[in-house]
Amino acid sequence: MPFDALFVPDPLREAVSDSAWLRGLLVAERALAAAEARLGLIPAVADAVFVEEGLDAEALARDGRRVGNPVEPLVRVLRERSEHVHYGATSQDVMDTAAALVARDAGALVRAELDGLAAECARLADEHRATVMAGRTLLQQAVPTTFGLKTAGWLAAVVEARAIHGEATLPAQLGGAAGTLATLGERGLDVLRAFAEELSLPEPALPWHAERVPVARLAAALAIAAQAVSKIALDVALLAQTEVAEVREPHEGASSTMPHKRNPVGSALARACAAGAQAAAGVVLRGEHEHERAAGAWHAEWKALSDSLALTGGAAWWMRETLAGLEVDTRRMRANLRAETLSEAQRFGGAERPEDYLGVADAFVDRALALFRR
Amino acid sequence: MPFDALFVPDPLREAVSDSAWLRGLLVAERALAAAEARLGLIPAVADAVFVEEGLDAEALARDGRRVGNPVEPLVRVLRERSEHVHYGATSQDVMDTAAALVARDAGALVRAELDGLAAECARLADEHRATVMAGRTLLQQAVPTTFGLKTAGWLAAVVEARAIHGEATLPAQLGGAAGTLATLGERGLDVLRAFAEELSLPEPALPWHAERVPVARLAAALAIAAQAVSKIALDVALLAQTEVAEVREPHEGASSTMPHKRNPVGSALARACAAGAQAAAGVVLRGEHEHERAAGAWHAEWKALSDSLALTGGAAWWMRETLAGLEVDTRRMRANLRAETLSEAQRFGGAERPEDYLGVADAFVDRALALFRR
Amino acid sequence: MPFDALFVPDPLREAVSDSAWLRGLLVAERALAAAEARLGLIPAVADAVFVEEGLDAEALARDGRRVGNPVEPLVRVLRERSEHVHYGATSQDVMDTAAALVARDAGALVRAELDGLAAECARLADEHRATVMAGRTLLQQAVPTTFGLKTAGWLAAVVEARAIHGEATLPAQLGGAAGTLATLGERGLDVLRAFAEELSLPEPALPWHAERVPVARLAAALAIAAQAVSKIALDVALLAQTEVAEVREPHEGASSTMPHKRNPVGSALARACAAGAQAAAGVVLRGEHEHERAAGAWHAEWKALSDSLALTGGAAWWMRETLAGLEVDTRRMRANLRAETLSEAQRFGGAERPEDYLGVADAFVDRALALFRR
Amino acid sequence: MPFDALFVPDPLREAVSDSAWLRGLLVAERALAAAEARLGLIPAVADAVFVEEGLDAEALARDGRRVGNPVEPLVRVLRERSEHVHYGATSQDVMDTAAALVARDAGALVRAELDGLAAECARLADEHRATVMAGRTLLQQAVPTTFGLKTAGWLAAVVEARAIHGEATLPAQLGGAAGTLATLGERGLDVLRAFAEELSLPEPALPWHAERVPVARLAAALAIAAQAVSKIALDVALLAQTEVAEVREPHEGASSTMPHKRNPVGSALARACAAGAQAAAGVVLRGEHEHERAAGAWHAEWKALSDSLALTGGAAWWMRETLAGLEVDTRRMRANLRAETLSEAQRFGGAERPEDYLGVADAFVDRALALFRR
Repeated sequence: MPFDALFVPDPLREAVSDSAWLRGLLVAERALAAAEARLGLIPAVADAVFVEEGLDAEALARDGRRVGNPVEPLVRVLRERSEHVHYGATSQDVMDTAAALVARDAGALVRAELDGLAAECARLADEHRATVMAGRTLLQQAVPTTFGLKTAGWLAAVVEARAIHGEATLPAQLGGAAGTLATLGERGLDVLRAFAEELSLPEPALPWHAERVPVARLAAALAIAAQAVSKIALDVALLAQTEVAEVREPHEGASSTMPHKRNPVGSALARACAAGAQAAAGVVLRGEHEHERAAGAWHAEWKALSDSLALTGGAAWWMRETLAGLEVDTRRMRANLRAETLSEAQRFGGAERPEDYLGVADAFVDRALALFRR
Repeated sequence: MPFDALFVPDPLREAVSDSAWLRGLLVAERALAAAEARLGLIPAVADAVFVEEGLDAEALARDGRRVGNPVEPLVRVLRERSEHVHYGATSQDVMDTAAALVARDAGALVRAELDGLAAECARLADEHRATVMAGRTLLQQAVPTTFGLKTAGWLAAVVEARAIHGEATLPAQLGGAAGTLATLGERGLDVLRAFAEELSLPEPALPWHAERVPVARLAAALAIAAQAVSKIALDVALLAQTEVAEVREPHEGASSTMPHKRNPVGSALARACAAGAQAAAGVVLRGEHEHERAAGAWHAEWKALSDSLALTGGAAWWMRETLAGLEVDTRRMRANLRAETLSEAQRFGGAERPEDYLGVADAFVDRALALFRR
Repeated sequence: MPFDALFVPDPLREAVSDSAWLRGLLVAERALAAAEARLGLIPAVADAVFVEEGLDAEALARDGRRVGNPVEPLVRVLRERSEHVHYGATSQDVMDTAAALVARDAGALVRAELDGLAAECARLADEHRATVMAGRTLLQQAVPTTFGLKTAGWLAAVVEARAIHGEATLPAQLGGAAGTLATLGERGLDVLRAFAEELSLPEPALPWHAERVPVARLAAALAIAAQAVSKIALDVALLAQTEVAEVREPHEGASSTMPHKRNPVGSALARACAAGAQAAAGVVLRGEHEHERAAGAWHAEWKALSDSLALTGGAAWWMRETLAGLEVDTRRMRANLRAETLSEAQRFGGAERPEDYLGVADAFVDRALALFRR
Repeated sequence: MPFDALFVPDPLREAVSDSAWLRGLLVAERALAAAEARLGLIPAVADAVFVEEGLDAEALARDGRRVGNPVEPLVRVLRERSEHVHYGATSQDVMDTAAALVARDAGALVRAELDGLAAECARLADEHRATVMAGRTLLQQAVPTTFGLKTAGWLAAVVEARAIHGEATLPAQLGGAAGTLATLGERGLDVLRAFAEELSLPEPALPWHAERVPVARLAAALAIAAQAVSKIALDVALLAQTEVAEVREPHEGASSTMPHKRNPVGSALARACAAGAQAAAGVVLRGEHEHERAAGAWHAEWKALSDSLALTGGAAWWMRETLAGLEVDTRRMRANLRAETLSEAQRFGGAERPEDYLGVADAFVDRALALFRR
């Protein structure tokens, strides 16, 4: 991604980098050896066999052109260090398990951003229970609402999306050449369980080499989260419009030529991230996986997963930062309420003031906060 | 859809038709009136007010061009029948609730198809535990597996996807003009609860007019199911290839000019359905919803939801029918095993016969069947 | 599509209907017979053989479930009328040619809508050369521009998109069972040419049964047009916001409960159409077509093409109608210019008034009008 | 992208790298200064002002977080070198022009790969005019065809896609803060023309800050090319199946555990690239650009363009290499022809041998070669 430091926070860039994937591959191989040694199938293999030193993701990728993946070249190197590595496994076992580890670690960062974003939404919802503003439908003022309820809506969506993401964990992968674990004979299930234990990853019921529901579920969860975040960004950008001016973003966003402007930088970048995250998730969701291992759809997942994780996290990061420093102009919110919007309140509710025409807005705020605190 | 009887079973076509949406709108209005009458906010409204007779979806759509949705024209008609209808509600409340009802009813049909498909997979998995065939990775023979394990993989994916879909229920929608239920004053939450009860739909914590996680979750679940079904279709089409000939589809698929051909009709149509379902789901997942009601993204959901339901169900229907009549040529499966594939088994496992090199395939079949029977 | 009269104009709904596809199939079969009779390969076949009477698209689709397409059932019926129909052709020849005819006829309607939309843009551009308004970047006022230049930008995009669509014509299709026209022996190329002539469709260099560049090009052109139209809709919806109020849509968009509101109905529906059109185009662009005829990707195109045509046209229709009746509040445009935006003009251009800081806006309007009139 | 050396050739990785974008920005700024100096608007600015030395894309991106793009930080640095840079321009002018330069240079590499791929297709088409093989529809043998015709179909599609890409050139961008070139007064058009001349980029009729037809057209062209390439990859992977074995890829694709396997590495990676390219193109095609500069949709294009260029090129590269070393087993092609397929030829054509039932296959090969050589 050109200029990706602009979009994605550094820890998340690291967490989906070549280097993180390489570490995932090594951790997977080490866990396999440890599990098999524990079960007495192979002798113990020294930890030093699995160190990153002497390895280079770029070189592995380049060498991997021969065979279509970086695992085979890696295994060659590791086998020079110990003959007992990779026993009973296939390349995809190691790659998918690395993906599970990358998704776990990067996913934790994504959820931390979502949690931080939720906390900002909750703060705003609580602070602005009584902040009256125009409710807007189809971009027209409708009837009054509160900024508390608006941010409570954001909050509820982020909390839901975060929960959905939290359930979308990739399990360990171990199936051998065609998903039967044949090389391991009758010990296959024992090795599978021990392998997952070593990694603290869920043990799958079956190998998922070509049955990608777990990956699709993760991708879908990221797309859902990206959408929830993007909605906040859109609302902030709309509220920050010159003519609305109900909020201002903390990032100055000044162009060198127009010092008076304050662009909604965070919202713009969050929306850009979300668009990319959703496209990447689509690659995973649409993948067609032939027989016991796909000729292409699998390979397409590596980038798609990395991108959907990084960009969903990037979107959440930008909106967390943006909400954390958001300036809310409550007077302007009140002043923007059009006379007709007010009269609507009067006509229907007999309400003299917009404050008297807020229905159960406050109760909804409580509900959203309860979801968050649960 | 041109020739849509080709793709989607009749009950499902009905369940997402204009007529089904119109019934959903009427059921939503009736439930609102019933809830409000129960709470003493309005007098009881006769059931006859909400009958379909005298209404026409086409005419409502045409009249709806004035206002951008078919609910306002419908409410005009209903208000001629009773002044107490639609009290406190906004058009989106009724439309979203209708969507929830359509999704529930059509979703039940989709799940029935998925259940039927799972049952066929389970039958095949159980029957073919001992049917040895080539495991194929990147479309090359790798090592032996069983047709039982292959179909067990299909089964596990369908069961998972079905469960994910089962959790993706749209709640009732009721928020009033801007999500505050202001017209209903302090009775808002009571009406909301009673409304959901009348409909036997989940009560939402907050209105979800512009926070579309529930819709996105449903769309994602359908996309995941479509992918799981599409993978089965792809495998069947590949196994049915002239040169592989390990299965034959029940549908003749003969062209009028080539009577010897037997095309994988069901697989082809299932894959076509899945492609459409995923695209439709993408519309929902990428929607950007402004403020308290979107100017476009909401309107785009009606077709997208209908299409993703109908086409996911269509895909599942075709594969259920296809597997139900699938001819499995177990001899050919055995005969197709290449000498090198066999020798691989010998080299690694010391196995004389492929049957001796199947690892824990059978145990994985048991696991998949246990998932299904749970 | 539920309530599709809301989204798509009636002639375009007709042009992509089952009935239009059926007529396309009949026209293709008639042209084939005519071409072959002209070349002396078969006797003349009476026009009455190809009448729609006695045929029903629904029934053909239902019967087509046996074979995976509606052409084989149609040919059965036609062969009862004359033994000479469909000579040398395969089902896909007829279906793809019908698609070409549907795309031509529906495409002409789409282009008519685009032309009408361009004319409205041109009118506005010319009328509002001197209408000063705020230029807005990242939704913030930047420096002054004119409504003439803004609409000139819309115009240029529509004109370009229309031209791209105009180049994306589907040719006739005729290749026989596997693209060799083998049944026709050495007369294959003659029949191909005569067939295309009968239809006034371009003659393809080669059969394109599984080489879908022409279809992808058409889908891409529709997606590009949908984007260009959707941008206009977005701008109108933003300008129509209560707080901006520089334009008002002609459609009242009033809800029954809020008579003061005037929703941007046309913009909202146009954006909804565009989202659906782009998703449908994506199905075509991503299709993977195996060997000489695809097992699914081809079948998915029928609905995808119909949807992308209908919805692109629907988007253009709504925006044409919207611009035709658009109320432009030039005073408000001027009044909305913020002091800082004006001072920017002064600071940089030494301009006293925004009128003096418009650079070559007018010249750009001329350029856009020249593109349109070309 | 994890392990992206696996997917994309080094020159193309370079051509879309941060460094290439930075060079694009510098070239754009230099051209602007040169154009303005030529017209006497500013004094000449030394080339040394625009050297990459002392600049770092990572640092600019990081600094750009303040303002949402890397151009403002760059301009700050350049202004320390000379006060006359960036006169009259806005950040988007420079960024879009850099995109045009990146797209031109990377696009040339993409087209070179497409040309190389076309040349391989042409070689195969010519060599295999007489190589009889089964034509396959819906993955079933239909009637005979030739490998020459199959590869001629690939050729025609690549040639068409290449031509479409060749027409999709991004113009220079120069509009100033809101597209009026106001700072440049009456010299705006002169500067625009001179700027485009300096860059040898097309001069746009109007600024295209928020009218993205040119970008959409490029993205669509890349998606079309990716699809054309992916179809070849799919066919090769299918022909290389163990049970078909009509071709073998040059890349060994052997796993360390199964030396007998020869995986279709190139096809798998090409298909993975194509899936990613299409998703990236979709980001561009679906972007919604508000007013005079988008708050997000613009920012999303930078990665989307880079990815769609790199991955389309990667797909073409892999297939060019794959076809260049493809082993074609013509005997196996003949042997695979099923008796029924042959009898079909006899039944219909009265042909004794498949060679006698090839219709105009050879003439179609000539047509494709003519397209290529044009």
